[in-house]
Amino acid sequence: MNDRPSTPDYLVADPIATGPRFGGIMTFFHLPLARDATGLDIAVCGVPFDGGITNRAGARSGPRAVREMSWSHIRPYHPVDDTPVFEGIEAADIGDVMLIPTERDASLDMITAFFADIAAKGALPLAVGGDHLVSLPILRALAADRPVGMIHFDAHTDTYDSIVPGRTEFKYDNGTVFRRAVEEGLLAPERVVQIGIRGPRFTPDDLGFSLNSGMRVITMDEFDEIGPQGAIAEARRVVGDGPTYLSFDIDALDAVFCPGTGSPEIGGYTSRQAQVMLRGLTGLNLIGADLVEVAPPLDTGGQTARVAAHLLFDLMYLLRDAALRRDS
Amino acid sequence: MNDRPSTPDYLVADPIATGPRFGGIMTFFHLPLARDATGLDIAVCGVPFDGGITNRAGARSGPRAVREMSWSHIRPYHPVDDTPVFEGIEAADIGDVMLIPTERDASLDMITAFFADIAAKGALPLAVGGDHLVSLPILRALAADRPVGMIHFDAHTDTYDSIVPGRTEFKYDNGTVFRRAVEEGLLAPERVVQIGIRGPRFTPDDLGFSLNSGMRVITMDEFDEIGPQGAIAEARRVVGDGPTYLSFDIDALDAVFCPGTGSPEIGGYTSRQAQVMLRGLTGLNLIGADLVEVAPPLDTGGQTARVAAHLLFDLMYLLRDAALRRDS
Amino acid sequence: MNDRPSTPDYLVADPIATGPRFGGIMTFFHLPLARDATGLDIAVCGVPFDGGITNRAGARSGPRAVREMSWSHIRPYHPVDDTPVFEGIEAADIGDVMLIPTERDASLDMITAFFADIAAKGALPLAVGGDHLVSLPILRALAADRPVGMIHFDAHTDTYDSIVPGRTEFKYDNGTVFRRAVEEGLLAPERVVQIGIRGPRFTPDDLGFSLNSGMRVITMDEFDEIGPQGAIAEARRVVGDGPTYLSFDIDALDAVFCPGTGSPEIGGYTSRQAQVMLRGLTGLNLIGADLVEVAPPLDTGGQTARVAAHLLFDLMYLLRDAALRRDS
Amino acid sequence: MNDRPSTPDYLVADPIATGPRFGGIMTFFHLPLARDATGLDIAVCGVPFDGGITNRAGARSGPRAVREMSWSHIRPYHPVDDTPVFEGIEAADIGDVMLIPTERDASLDMITAFFADIAAKGALPLAVGGDHLVSLPILRALAADRPVGMIHFDAHTDTYDSIVPGRTEFKYDNGTVFRRAVEEGLLAPERVVQIGIRGPRFTPDDLGFSLNSGMRVITMDEFDEIGPQGAIAEARRVVGDGPTYLSFDIDALDAVFCPGTGSPEIGGYTSRQAQVMLRGLTGLNLIGADLVEVAPPLDTGGQTARVAAHLLFDLMYLLRDAALRRDS
Amino acid sequence: MNDRPSTPDYLVADPIATGPRFGGIMTFFHLPLARDATGLDIAVCGVPFDGGITNRAGARSGPRAVREMSWSHIRPYHPVDDTPVFEGIEAADIGDVMLIPTERDASLDMITAFFADIAAKGALPLAVGGDHLVSLPILRALAADRPVGMIHFDAHTDTYDSIVPGRTEFKYDNGTVFRRAVEEGLLAPERVVQIGIRGPRFTPDDLGFSLNSGMRVITMDEFDEIGPQGAIAEARRVVGDGPTYLSFDIDALDAVFCPGTGSPEIGGYTSRQAQVMLRGLTGLNLIGADLVEVAPPLDTGGQTARVAAHLLFDLMYLLRDAALRRDS
Amino acid sequence: MNDRPSTPDYLVADPIATGPRFGGIMTFFHLPLARDATGLDIAVCGVPFDGGITNRAGARSGPRAVREMSWSHIRPYHPVDDTPVFEGIEAADIGDVMLIPTERDASLDMITAFFADIAAKGALPLAVGGDHLVSLPILRALAADRPVGMIHFDAHTDTYDSIVPGRTEFKYDNGTVFRRAVEEGLLAPERVVQIGIRGPRFTPDDLGFSLNSGMRVITMDEFDEIGPQGAIAEARRVVGDGPTYLSFDIDALDAVFCPGTGSPEIGGYTSRQAQVMLRGLTGLNLIGADLVEVAPPLDTGGQTARVAAHLLFDLMYLLRDAALRRDS
Repeated sequence: MNDRPSTPDYLVADPIATGPRFGGIMTFFHLPLARDATGLDIAVCGVPFDGGITNRAGARSGPRAVREMSWSHIRPYHPVDDTPVFEGIEAADIGDVMLIPTERDASLDMITAFFADIAAKGALPLAVGGDHLVSLPILRALAADRPVGMIHFDAHTDTYDSIVPGRTEFKYDNGTVFRRAVEEGLLAPERVVQIGIRGPRFTPDDLGFSLNSGMRVITMDEFDEIGPQGAIAEARRVVGDGPTYLSFDIDALDAVFCPGTGSPEIGGYTSRQAQVMLRGLTGLNLIGADLVEVAPPLDTGGQTARVAAHLLFDLMYLLRDAALRRDS
Repeated sequence: MNDRPSTPDYLVADPIATGPRFGGIMTFFHLPLARDATGLDIAVCGVPFDGGITNRAGARSGPRAVREMSWSHIRPYHPVDDTPVFEGIEAADIGDVMLIPTERDASLDMITAFFADIAAKGALPLAVGGDHLVSLPILRALAADRPVGMIHFDAHTDTYDSIVPGRTEFKYDNGTVFRRAVEEGLLAPERVVQIGIRGPRFTPDDLGFSLNSGMRVITMDEFDEIGPQGAIAEARRVVGDGPTYLSFDIDALDAVFCPGTGSPEIGGYTSRQAQVMLRGLTGLNLIGADLVEVAPPLDTGGQTARVAAHLLFDLMYLLRDAALRRDS
Repeated sequence: MNDRPSTPDYLVADPIATGPRFGGIMTFFHLPLARDATGLDIAVCGVPFDGGITNRAGARSGPRAVREMSWSHIRPYHPVDDTPVFEGIEAADIGDVMLIPTERDASLDMITAFFADIAAKGALPLAVGGDHLVSLPILRALAADRPVGMIHFDAHTDTYDSIVPGRTEFKYDNGTVFRRAVEEGLLAPERVVQIGIRGPRFTPDDLGFSLNSGMRVITMDEFDEIGPQGAIAEARRVVGDGPTYLSFDIDALDAVFCPGTGSPEIGGYTSRQAQVMLRGLTGLNLIGADLVEVAPPLDTGGQTARVAAHLLFDLMYLLRDAALRRDS
Repeated sequence: MNDRPSTPDYLVADPIATGPRFGGIMTFFHLPLARDATGLDIAVCGVPFDGGITNRAGARSGPRAVREMSWSHIRPYHPVDDTPVFEGIEAADIGDVMLIPTERDASLDMITAFFADIAAKGALPLAVGGDHLVSLPILRALAADRPVGMIHFDAHTDTYDSIVPGRTEFKYDNGTVFRRAVEEGLLAPERVVQIGIRGPRFTPDDLGFSLNSGMRVITMDEFDEIGPQGAIAEARRVVGDGPTYLSFDIDALDAVFCPGTGSPEIGGYTSRQAQVMLRGLTGLNLIGADLVEVAPPLDTGGQTARVAAHLLFDLMYLLRDAALRRDS
Repeated sequence: MNDRPSTPDYLVADPIATGPRFGGIMTFFHLPLARDATGLDIAVCGVPFDGGITNRAGARSGPRAVREMSWSHIRPYHPVDDTPVFEGIEAADIGDVMLIPTERDASLDMITAFFADIAAKGALPLAVGGDHLVSLPILRALAADRPVGMIHFDAHTDTYDSIVPGRTEFKYDNGTVFRRAVEEGLLAPERVVQIGIRGPRFTPDDLGFSLNSGMRVITMDEFDEIGPQGAIAEARRVVGDGPTYLSFDIDALDAVFCPGTGSPEIGGYTSRQAQVMLRGLTGLNLIGADLVEVAPPLDTGGQTARVAAHLLFDLMYLLRDAALRRDS
Repeated sequence: MNDRPSTPDYLVADPIATGPRFGGIMTFFHLPLARDATGLDIAVCGVPFDGGITNRAGARSGPRAVREMSWSHIRPYHPVDDTPVFEGIEAADIGDVMLIPTERDASLDMITAFFADIAAKGALPLAVGGDHLVSLPILRALAADRPVGMIHFDAHTDTYDSIVPGRTEFKYDNGTVFRRAVEEGLLAPERVVQIGIRGPRFTPDDLGFSLNSGMRVITMDEFDEIGPQGAIAEARRVVGDGPTYLSFDIDALDAVFCPGTGSPEIGGYTSRQAQVMLRGLTGLNLIGADLVEVAPPLDTGGQTARVAAHLLFDLMYLLRDAALRRDS
């Protein structure tokens, strides 16, 4: 079967949707499909793993749902400045990481290998989870040689020591991921900003590790005061021009925008405010980004996946910006 | 209202709901049911057509769902000033346009004939779609003799030339409707205002026709600055006191308020802001209005239809205002 | 039917659907809308009351949902013999009973008055509930002068004495309705057959009243042996040619066919078997019929209402048969 | 808390969730389960009654859904000040009121008896409805000896005289509850504030009783001007330091946050604004609180129950505050 | 971008699922993705068109949903005989037909061209609709040179003359498709069998064209008597060994199995019976097959798409059987 | 049972539901709540673990959903013989196993310890999963000292060697569980019967281990021939009177009855047939039973959980039968 060209011409001649958006073999944003990141500036991919979820599962099918929404809802020009988001760079959908849903540790290694290959080929990864634990193996691949900064949109700090108090042998889940990343030397905590933190807490010290390690934590109470522009300013100040990762947990948004996630929290910012914040983050030295915790079985009418697809479009816009400056 | 044949006495002794709002033969707002617009000031009706939808279908059952919600959720007095919205004028539900779902062109003609009859009888139409293409045959009926102005709430300009770039023989769908209306001399573009435009674009010139033809386009970026009051002021300035149509695409709202529509866009205004804008538009020379793109099969829990019913109530309030001044 | 005010011409020129079945002012089966039963052979109506439900509520909106499904899914000729079900008789939708959802006893009286008026005008009623308690006020209207027989499709006997054991002052709900009907002299228990009884029981004597009073109870274990034809034969034998009411609780069906009901029971007959049974009941002396316990808020995708609309079509077929023989 | 019989050790060693939040025998907030209010400062309970609903039913299963959400989503420390919300006081889940869904008046008496027992034992009740009519029997128990003040979050005033105009014998439903409470001497209207009133009205005098009796009514139009802080100030001013009840109808929120309620209204405040308002109400002399009108069968993805659980957490925080000051 | 190989190796090394079935770029059955039918024995594809639907729309996204279900639920060996269904032949997913949802006639031509190309390349097509009208342009491609036989599973005959009685200019929709096919000389009616016909009828002559033209119609009443084996025998007898098309309308199944279709009918056969019938049809001279009318927006929990994917697997099994015999 | 601390009197005075079935602190079947199995004959419990699922997750919340359905839908007397299912024995709900969702191996050990304690206390466990992997740690507890027989209802054999062909280090998931059980000496394969096997297969040898090890495999093709009675006879013959476990995977049923499960398969037996089979299995030497793979996030309208609750009632009936004979 080797001699047959794979995807039809009409499908990937260019990244613009030319046909029925409810049909076709779907890729992220109508991007061409590639075997791997060879020759790419940006590699979009899915990480269908949710073995790190401590509450409600379902994020394993996040890539499928966000890919579909990005195919059917996203057009190629950005409304703020008519940038052709998929032109001027080489970008493709390289599919999903192959992993084993029932084998957490083996799967984390597979994810690291997948992203190490992207990095080795010189592309910037744009990953769709999966639960937030997937950020750890991604960072292991991208920050293997030095700690990086991070802009982290989330309702939760994800810097617990263990889901079971006092049982430190249980180390890896979506609530401990960034504590592990700091411990492993992948994150420079003083170059990390967390935006949107809120909700009832497990302990009186839920923010302890974040604050003590030097992260900048912007709670919703503070956000109410400083607004999206204040958050943008703080984020830019904290990460500076060093290498920076961006991680967007969909539950950063108010729960009304993301019913389809494992731990929705009410009282967050709107999707509009998230768009405004992302659009204020051009010019940074981004090394990759992820959007995680979309859990389609918990979603209603595809609302969460839809919002995620739009935010992913803004992440793509940011990575394109970073890739172009890197090349220049 | 005595000489119009209508529904049984027990049902509509007056337009106020006196019984179980979850039962009964439903009409828009508990209005009496009329054969046609004879003797009416305002004729409320449905246009169950979605053959103009280029993405996700379902708006053909919009009239059914909005009618039900308007029956079960809307009471007769307006909260801003206790106006008895259905008194002081003659208004009725005249049912839905008979059309053939698989025959687009024949159906458009049937719609035009239906609204031409309303106009001929001297009533103002309040139409519930159906997809946005239905505004074209309505305007053919209402603006046959001169171009009119329009206040247009929408996420999209709907002024593309064709859904298939370069294939100008494919002219009629819900993305081209107002370009066609201008070309047919139905709209005076310099008296058109579009409020809420946003979202990824198909081309770098998506706003081209609107802007070049003289329409006033208020994007969400501008709306963030001027707010509902600024939008009201601009709308009033643009349309002035000439004959004006009002078209409300439900996707003008942020997607979280309208999951049940073909092309929801995140980052729009709230339903509260839409209410405020509509309530600021009294005193205009309205010749009719529509509310379109409610697609019940895509909705969750009737949320979109519910919002639509409330906005329809405000449209009714505006048309009553226009009808009363016209009569005086 | 000419002198009855009704719906617009285009809508009901005849009971055959000639236009978009997803639009229009909906009536049962596209029947004309009438103020009351004057001049009718069969009066179809809704009884939107669920104040008798002891478990999950929602049946109050049953008439709305079944009416919509009967409008959009049912065509006018019967497949067994091409009978024009809505021709040859005078039939109309006379709307829903006006009642007060929070006032059980007053509502029961309103229901009785409504059906007494139908009976006084000489029409056969075909009622859509509402919960099963509505059968009691209907029987009070139809069997005021003598007890009648009944063919009763149900998973439950509905002949408990009280929902609260030993508290006989709590008498009226959907589990006690037919015990009350016997006590009030409305039903002749020896002319009652109950088909489809099954499910875990509250007491070791759940079938006691039914059996002791002389009703013929066909459990699902027996149904497995005798099949639809056996059930038809027993039903015909039990009710004979005396006046007979037919009551169909949608939960008679296996729960997979009726998720949208208050107390679904698994292990029942199929909708196909129900159709076959109903079609075997022509030639009886039917005085009316009801179909109850469709609870749309609990339904999934309208499945329960759809099945109900089809069974209602067969009930209509039976009542037409009875009406024609009565007239001859 | 040692001498109260309760749930197994492994389940409730302390009120902090230590295991899978999606499993276990669920209580409100992981609180211990108690037989009654003996020895408690705060008794959390459900009132699964919706026989007072005039529109769409379903609130009878509100306690079940909110209990589950509070178990799986709420952690024990409050984010504004790391207060351990369930420590420093004796609190427990005492289950649901036993009542008879089809017997409204008997059920109201059962509810009153249940809360009278709580009051007699010296505990503050935190009740989850059920429809809003349940506030009446609760007030009969708590305000039997003197009228109290009330902070009332709602879209509707609930001070109609009767659901059926002119039929004053129909007195008890979720739209008349607070007029009855005033008439029965349970509420001091000049110490009542209603926050969030909006939506189409049944009569031109819908606010009449509230305003004429001396209640302070904050409509959404006013709320737009004064904001959460203004509402807090007014609420504190109106109720002063006298005994005060707090009643939160979930439909006070914009309909997008609470699709799962009987009469959702668009154009309300956000869940974030509600949180801010509740958090501004410490230091008052609260005698109890309820959260009502969550109707799970109408909900989508548990969104309404989730918001309710979070607001219930803030009500718990307020009652703890009141209990601690009372004890000091 | 030309030099990058398209689909990753791990995805299409062989048609067996080796990884997470909820992730990946989905193709029908994990088949490789091909540009067109060159070199193929069987070309699986989607026809995302529903412009021929006269009742409820939504089938345009049928290919997407069935493709996803076939990817996540179907394994490669057939349970009746362990046949490796995707081995021994060349098969691929060639994507969806490019078409214009708002342009019926142009789209039909595009479909015909697409299938004519498949036929010209010598492959057998296995198509997923889309509504039933798509069978017409497929037959125009496959039966251009001579009429063919057909095994037609459906609740409806689809041989009406026009959706609007007497308006014969409205010719093309999903209720008239096979009358048109006969009129165009594409079908040999005496070699057509229709299995599963039932449901209320529009006219007393709904079966007229089918019967008069010589088709063999097996209604559900007959099916109850002859069973799956009887239907198999009749189908084999009617089509003989001439060239035969197979068309499976998902609404052939009882409505409980296919809520996600435009016109579900209760009282049909089970999915098990459908499997048995299809498995009895090996050895025929099949020239192609389609499975139509899956409408995902109307589906509940993916049930209809899941059943469709399984039936598509059996159709694949049949086409493989036909292809292998053709080659031998 | 008097000395066990438990829930309030009003809740569990006896296991019969005496109040609103939609309220209250829910336990399985209204059973009393116990700390552990001390003094019990039958211990009903949940195992909220789904870390062994290779396809769609969600079964972790199975216990919650089935517990709720068993509380609200199941009454205490069995319809076949009016047996008081919860009397004559000591039975209680002992809650759910505490485990760590992200730690598979630690969780399996916790499950084994939990069931070993039940066994040590002399009670028969009735477990609700969770995914099918939970049967392994249960068997490790119950069959530690000798291999047992098993009646296994399932669509799949669950005797694969590894989810990843050739990667035998990945050993533990819901597709390998019974191969592991045989390898660990927990099951005597010649005393195992598997009923309902069907569906596309991963390899041509999917049934190999089952058949080669001596299990009796009844496929759906065979079931079509022998029916429920034949299956009962075979099951009784195979397990004889030795110690026997019963495991019911809800996907044994036709997919239409269980949309809420990870790997539904069409073409299975009905819930009625499952009831009949279970009711034919009295008199066996049962040592425990489980019902697994109910995945509520994938369910529609609670249908799967409802069927599961009814089947659990029949399992309870069987365990009671076994416990009574053991005691005698």
